[in-house]
Amino acid sequence: MDLSSFLTSLGTSFLIFVVLMFLFTWLSRKPGNTVVYYPNRILRGLDPWEGGSMTRNPFAWIKEALYSTEQEIISVSGVDTAVYFVFMSTVLGILVLSSIVLLPILLSVAATEEAHKLADASVSNGTFSDLDHLSMGHLKEKSPRLWAFLVGVYWVSFVTYVLLWKAYKHASNLRASALMSPQAKPEQFAILVRDIPDVPEGQIRKEQVDSYFKTIYPDTFYRSLVVTDNKEVNKIWKELEGYKKKLARAEAVYAISKDTGKSEGTRPTNKTGFLGLCGAKVDSIDYYTKKINELTPKLEAEQKATLREKQQNAALVFFTSRVTAAAAAQTLHAQLVDTWIVTEAPEPRQLLWRNLKIKFFQRQVRQYVVYIIVALTVLFFMVPIAAISAFTTLENLKKLLPFLKPILKQKAIRTVLEAYLPQIALILFLAFLPKFLLFLSKTEGIPSLSHAVRASSGKYFYFTVFNVFIGVTVGGTLFSTFKTIEKDPNSIVDLLATSLPANATYFLTFVALKFFVGYGLELFRLVPLIIFHIKRKYVCKTEAEVKAAWFPSDLGYGTRVPGDMLIITIVLCYSVIAPLILPFGVLYFGLGWLVLRNQALKVYVPSYESYGRMWPHIQVRLIASLILYQVTMFGYFGVKKFVYAPFLLPLPILSLLYIFICSKKFYHFFQHTALEVAAHELKEIPNMEQVYRAFIPPSLSSEKLNHDQFEDAQSNVSRTAASLA
Amino acid sequence: MDLSSFLTSLGTSFLIFVVLMFLFTWLSRKPGNTVVYYPNRILRGLDPWEGGSMTRNPFAWIKEALYSTEQEIISVSGVDTAVYFVFMSTVLGILVLSSIVLLPILLSVAATEEAHKLADASVSNGTFSDLDHLSMGHLKEKSPRLWAFLVGVYWVSFVTYVLLWKAYKHASNLRASALMSPQAKPEQFAILVRDIPDVPEGQIRKEQVDSYFKTIYPDTFYRSLVVTDNKEVNKIWKELEGYKKKLARAEAVYAISKDTGKSEGTRPTNKTGFLGLCGAKVDSIDYYTKKINELTPKLEAEQKATLREKQQNAALVFFTSRVTAAAAAQTLHAQLVDTWIVTEAPEPRQLLWRNLKIKFFQRQVRQYVVYIIVALTVLFFMVPIAAISAFTTLENLKKLLPFLKPILKQKAIRTVLEAYLPQIALILFLAFLPKFLLFLSKTEGIPSLSHAVRASSGKYFYFTVFNVFIGVTVGGTLFSTFKTIEKDPNSIVDLLATSLPANATYFLTFVALKFFVGYGLELFRLVPLIIFHIKRKYVCKTEAEVKAAWFPSDLGYGTRVPGDMLIITIVLCYSVIAPLILPFGVLYFGLGWLVLRNQALKVYVPSYESYGRMWPHIQVRLIASLILYQVTMFGYFGVKKFVYAPFLLPLPILSLLYIFICSKKFYHFFQHTALEVAAHELKEIPNMEQVYRAFIPPSLSSEKLNHDQFEDAQSNVSRTAASLA
Repeated sequence: MDLSSFLTSLGTSFLIFVVLMFLFTWLSRKPGNTVVYYPNRILRGLDPWEGGSMTRNPFAWIKEALYSTEQEIISVSGVDTAVYFVFMSTVLGILVLSSIVLLPILLSVAATEEAHKLADASVSNGTFSDLDHLSMGHLKEKSPRLWAFLVGVYWVSFVTYVLLWKAYKHASNLRASALMSPQAKPEQFAILVRDIPDVPEGQIRKEQVDSYFKTIYPDTFYRSLVVTDNKEVNKIWKELEGYKKKLARAEAVYAISKDTGKSEGTRPTNKTGFLGLCGAKVDSIDYYTKKINELTPKLEAEQKATLREKQQNAALVFFTSRVTAAAAAQTLHAQLVDTWIVTEAPEPRQLLWRNLKIKFFQRQVRQYVVYIIVALTVLFFMVPIAAISAFTTLENLKKLLPFLKPILKQKAIRTVLEAYLPQIALILFLAFLPKFLLFLSKTEGIPSLSHAVRASSGKYFYFTVFNVFIGVTVGGTLFSTFKTIEKDPNSIVDLLATSLPANATYFLTFVALKFFVGYGLELFRLVPLIIFHIKRKYVCKTEAEVKAAWFPSDLGYGTRVPGDMLIITIVLCYSVIAPLILPFGVLYFGLGWLVLRNQALKVYVPSYESYGRMWPHIQVRLIASLILYQVTMFGYFGVKKFVYAPFLLPLPILSLLYIFICSKKFYHFFQHTALEVAAHELKEIPNMEQVYRAFIPPSLSSEKLNHDQFEDAQSNVSRTAASLA
Repeated sequence: MDLSSFLTSLGTSFLIFVVLMFLFTWLSRKPGNTVVYYPNRILRGLDPWEGGSMTRNPFAWIKEALYSTEQEIISVSGVDTAVYFVFMSTVLGILVLSSIVLLPILLSVAATEEAHKLADASVSNGTFSDLDHLSMGHLKEKSPRLWAFLVGVYWVSFVTYVLLWKAYKHASNLRASALMSPQAKPEQFAILVRDIPDVPEGQIRKEQVDSYFKTIYPDTFYRSLVVTDNKEVNKIWKELEGYKKKLARAEAVYAISKDTGKSEGTRPTNKTGFLGLCGAKVDSIDYYTKKINELTPKLEAEQKATLREKQQNAALVFFTSRVTAAAAAQTLHAQLVDTWIVTEAPEPRQLLWRNLKIKFFQRQVRQYVVYIIVALTVLFFMVPIAAISAFTTLENLKKLLPFLKPILKQKAIRTVLEAYLPQIALILFLAFLPKFLLFLSKTEGIPSLSHAVRASSGKYFYFTVFNVFIGVTVGGTLFSTFKTIEKDPNSIVDLLATSLPANATYFLTFVALKFFVGYGLELFRLVPLIIFHIKRKYVCKTEAEVKAAWFPSDLGYGTRVPGDMLIITIVLCYSVIAPLILPFGVLYFGLGWLVLRNQALKVYVPSYESYGRMWPHIQVRLIASLILYQVTMFGYFGVKKFVYAPFLLPLPILSLLYIFICSKKFYHFFQHTALEVAAHELKEIPNMEQVYRAFIPPSLSSEKLNHDQFEDAQSNVSRTAASLA
């Protein structure tokens, strides 16, 4: 790629960004769009435009984002989001500090090297372009100028170490101050107990759990909540809620028809069959009312049956003290280690109820099976794609879906399909990958959503780094280069090192595209905007339906982080080879910070809180990227026949040591709550009844069911609780 | 080795054993020897011969040992000893069950194979002997009879799995019942806190520790004991104690001289210089009294100074509840994980005070350095030996120690020295190895003696298996066969497999010697007997000195277990190749169980109690031996060109899985105290003052120092304690 085409590509991306920015500024000021651009504020009951968003200045949002404090982010979007910004700003810091030193020095060292034609292919795809003047590939073999680049690698590494250390400390403090907050959260008073042994004869599960914990914690045990199999009751409850919504909708339609048409209105009707397309035609309001009246007693019966008969081998146990709960969650309770396994209780909203009953050794087996599947997916991800492509040839399609025949006979469509079918398969696969990984992570038996998201995010990172970065660089997938590597396992580093410079401009464009178009679209929210307007116009009839149409999603760092990690991996690996990539990295993370700050403050609503548990995962993977960078650079200095290349060898060792020290110094606190943190004073004695109720799933909570009726799965208040109330 | 020489060797060993047994029966009945053969009973205030040891029957001790219960062992010698017997009896069970099946089947299968001369060297050193008829080496290559041997490997493995599983459960129950005993031990109410951060300004260490734990455990915190640097005070205290003993001795000598010689007696004298050999001659009683009077105020001053000024960054913290202490010992206390590190407090008598101050990261570094040193020792242990041998040649000795010259000139001495010097160096090295490994383990910064013993025992196991077993088998040390292995890493298994049968009779003799002579000497206690009698006759003057002369040692499982493990490794590895070794293994562990049972009941006195923490270490190493066996057998079936050899491959995988499951199911309870165990009711509320005093080292405990005086390192009773007393 020569300079002009590179600049064209860059210019196009920038243009798209400017257009998107303009559209955002224009559309976000229309009152009808506030729910798309300020849903978070509206949900918090604030004026969407407070603070000057409505002024003439189209860049007011930038100012707002810049002046927002970390405390605001935590109060609006939680510690997890704050930690995500710690990550963004740390990476930004690393890249800025690297740029300041590397850009002036390395570019001038490279540019002043005498021009020479290189025989090997270490310049961009053989064409000698202006950009290559400014990269390490331009240097002669064994040139003493390579020393500058070697020192550059050290500089980048040390900047990373120092800033990541500070960031770990910062994240740890954020977590601590959230956990020691005087406003206690329900999950801080609860622990999750799994693998409860079989109920002894003559006892019920509730008695078993209560007597076990009462013996150990005579003073602080409050009560327990036995986990039940809620599948059936959830189904009925969902059905009931669905009918309630449909009834509300039918009533709204009827009301509208009264206003617009005949005075007595048209009573809406619907068909009772499949998807409302077939079956007998009935009056909607009557039909849904009847259904609701039928289902309500059924739900109540099922609730009772669930609580009595569908108790499982897991329970939530509540304590009246935050310290006891924190200590109980990290201590061994049973002599047989695979029974009575305790963990911190996750937030009620992110409990994965269905996983709780899975037994310890089954969890282990599931985990390893999932790891194997993921490893195979990462390494051989092209195989299913190829299989799908082979399967979805036109001939096969014709056979399987004969009704497509007439369409496929058209020459133009034929050509396009033949060319793009494999690509479509690939794109679909990549689009479903995060969901697939999340599904796999949930299958492991993880008890909370945030943990499952972390696990799948980690898996996704390995996938992107292996397949996108190494895959693109080496040219093809790892799978296809296995033959080379098999002969000599060390060749992977050489292979990577020789292929890197050739792809420098490709990745430069990739990063630029990613931030200009990606963050432009993020800010502009094109898809939510369109969907909302369509829904509001054609689908939504009730207030609740409209709210559901604009209700914002989570920030979704589970998929964001791997994407960002890919960028930082690319930028790090090229930071010394082609320092020109650094400003692009700075722009990516700077712009990202700005745009997402805006989105976190105004758009997204957190769907769970894990108190920054994501951070250690991010940190380890950042260092993994750094090690990849250091090893690759060692290989590349080898390619340049620089005899002092072994001076780079201490770096990967240092990085491993660094991970080790960090994990020993900080990690344990991200696994457990430190008692000194939990021991901070509370503003008021918590209402234990509320704490307890917070964990009852909506399908099981009912005003009609009082305690005496469902004492089976939800135990009575203990004597100590009475004395505290 | 042919049959007759094998039988001769066996016969000799047996004869020695019979002689030792006879001597034991004879000598143990003499009243003057009771303190050598029954010290444990005497210390417990029991009649040494109760239960019939004094009867005519020389085998009464066997009956006693057989009828002793596990409860007796625990009450006399603690859980650690009981766990050691679980190990002995489990291995005995494995070998008996293996023998019952393997001996009749495999021996008959091997013996009925047609005789044939084998070309290769897989029979004992080329000579075709009677013994080899009965081994697997006798079978033809590819013989279908090999199936019987393959099934034999499976049988041995499964017997091991089943019995070890039961044993793990048993050991876990022993530990649990000891920990839940209603008689509380002081260490169950204490935790050890290390890595306490620097004292904040304006606070003293005691306040820092007390306020920290009072905040977290307002109801159960009792008080704390800051660890001090006792080096100086210990030195003075030891000196003082030494003078006190010497004074008592001088007084005894004076009293004797009054009785025997002149009526006014001879006042003993001594010289004040080096070892009492030079210097001025003084009256002993006056001199020692003066010294004691001088040192006593010095000790008191040093005690005060130590408690005030030599406080370190560690402390023992006491709680009024066993559950709280157990929970506190396993929970994270500080946000920064490398500060306020808590562990269970070891028994006071086995605390390694000097290690307590070592900081976390230093401990890590020490640990890895020690691991590297041990690995190098295991792999290259011949190098220092060779160096010492080279150094201690006669020529060098003459130069360095000229006074030896006249001796070395004698021809006979010369020849002997030249032949044996390297062997002597090796024997000395091997004798010092356990001490060296214990020293290394202590250097790691481990806080308790039992832990250090466990660690050094594990290291010793690897040393013996690698050097004695593999070393002898492969013929030479690992070091010397590295060249072969370097070319093809897989060749180690082949090498081991081909060398094994050739050494069968060697190891048979080795095992026989070990149990007949080893256990004979163990029972007979030759060395303690001689030392005691010499000391009593020529050295001891006071009662205390006589008691010190016969005071028994520990059972010393730290060095016993690796020895036993070596035997079980050898027997396992030969169990199928030469099943004749099995009865010898049975005899070793049967006799060992019997003899040590006697010794545990009557002789040894435990010097610490770790509540069976040794067991998981033993179990893992037993399985490691089993894996070595399985892999070697796979190699040996390969040598026999048995095409179904791969049927053995699932076994090592199964063994790894087995270790994994065992550790997940049981191990954690051996690391920590399960709360359900600690929550068992106590017989009476413990006297916290006694608990606390148990941890004050003797050099610091003094009646004269009351609490007010040493409040610095030993904090005051908290308010909660007062309410409990």
